[in-house]
Amino acid sequence: VNLNLPAPNTTRIRLLVAYDGTDFCGWQRQSTTGTPSIQETLEKALSKIYDAPINCSAAGRTDAGVHALGQVAHFDAPRLMKTDLPWALRSVLPPSVAVKEAWIAPPEFHATLSATKKNYRYLVYNAPRVNPILGRYSYWVRDPQDIAYLNQTASYLIGTHDFKSFQSAGTPVRSTVRTIYHAEWRRVFHSNVLLFSVTGDGFLKQMVRNVVGTMLDLAKYGCDPQEMKRIIGEQNRTKAGPTAPPEGLFMRKVYYPLDLDRQCRKFYNDKS
Amino acid sequence: VNLNLPAPNTTRIRLLVAYDGTDFCGWQRQSTTGTPSIQETLEKALSKIYDAPINCSAAGRTDAGVHALGQVAHFDAPRLMKTDLPWALRSVLPPSVAVKEAWIAPPEFHATLSATKKNYRYLVYNAPRVNPILGRYSYWVRDPQDIAYLNQTASYLIGTHDFKSFQSAGTPVRSTVRTIYHAEWRRVFHSNVLLFSVTGDGFLKQMVRNVVGTMLDLAKYGCDPQEMKRIIGEQNRTKAGPTAPPEGLFMRKVYYPLDLDRQCRKFYNDKS
Repeated sequence: VNLNLPAPNTTRIRLLVAYDGTDFCGWQRQSTTGTPSIQETLEKALSKIYDAPINCSAAGRTDAGVHALGQVAHFDAPRLMKTDLPWALRSVLPPSVAVKEAWIAPPEFHATLSATKKNYRYLVYNAPRVNPILGRYSYWVRDPQDIAYLNQTASYLIGTHDFKSFQSAGTPVRSTVRTIYHAEWRRVFHSNVLLFSVTGDGFLKQMVRNVVGTMLDLAKYGCDPQEMKRIIGEQNRTKAGPTAPPEGLFMRKVYYPLDLDRQCRKFYNDKS
Repeated sequence: VNLNLPAPNTTRIRLLVAYDGTDFCGWQRQSTTGTPSIQETLEKALSKIYDAPINCSAAGRTDAGVHALGQVAHFDAPRLMKTDLPWALRSVLPPSVAVKEAWIAPPEFHATLSATKKNYRYLVYNAPRVNPILGRYSYWVRDPQDIAYLNQTASYLIGTHDFKSFQSAGTPVRSTVRTIYHAEWRRVFHSNVLLFSVTGDGFLKQMVRNVVGTMLDLAKYGCDPQEMKRIIGEQNRTKAGPTAPPEGLFMRKVYYPLDLDRQCRKFYNDKS
């Protein structure tokens, strides 16, 4: 029995969502903090459009300050409107949150549970002086970095490993084993911006930020890149490096099984 | 008699300044608005460092919401400190304003009066859906743009012309004749971002934004690119297009005579 199917007479809608996470407490609804969450912001906007309470689930709960270019969420619409939903949402969402696309999804589509792969990007601004424009969207590291060295450390992430060393405390999970398909640093267009791109079947709490913080620490102390392999083997958070700050992290893409993707369809005439 | 020379026993300091203009009322000190100006923010920080009132002049007064990657300013320091001034300023400036470099300048250096050329950039985000990350730093235009067309319209800007048609009201100037050395649109790395780069010996009030707004309007109405030439000839603001929004505009570089540049020197040991 799949308890996550839509209620009778509702339609499951899939959303592609982008946001600037700077002024949010993260994806998840939190009643305790004063800062709004992306989830409650989106739910409030959808509830206004449908004039009924709407709940949303997302592919991954991004932390406070983390951005998204391609977060995926779903909700169950009480009725079907022929309007351009992303366009309609513009007037009820703040400029820092945007729904880029909306589809009618098959009932078994679940933003969290159906996801098979995710891609994250982490931006490092690597220059002697701070840059106020990039400050919102990158981590400023003064010491000049060697991309080849960083890629050697990153290479040990690839494959199926127990990533317990890179899991921050707080959210219990059944297993800390994850598969990383791709992990690579590159310099963005000969600039001072370094980009770390990582794709995996799933990520532990703050895993990307912990991995980035560790790679940059190994570089700082001039360690052998193989140290990365040893740290993974330790399966102990205290053996790895610090958590890199949230402003450099972007949830870029979530992957779903092809047959689910194929069953998703637009329900409005795109204005563009 | 040059009234702009430093007072006795002071040293003229040249600064390279970058800022995110989003939350400022522009460069210039304004007592009337509640929002701070870049000028007063910088002056307050310098006054704290020198423990004396400091006044700053800049190469150009950017408008509210306009950003800078390479604004140039000068002030007269009451005494010479051997400290790394950009570094010291970090602790007294908000993260949205950064002094990237500081030099002892020759007494005759004047950020505004000595400037010979300026380069501005304007970013257009050209995609059907809004992008919350780029929203702070670009103008969102939905209709697909043709770079070749835009470049045809831009070509008529090059040379020495009376640019009265592109001058917003408010600041009287002796002459509305300016020389544009370079004006070109390009697509940034095959992305949805279009960049207009323009270099000239000077710019009238809101001239870059008025020029951009006009080029985009000509594109929108499918006009002959030669209309740009006619509009320049009209010497009438009402014949040109709207003022493009400030968030897309970046003051990128200010040029000074080579001999003045050569006389500028650092007065501290750079930490980097």
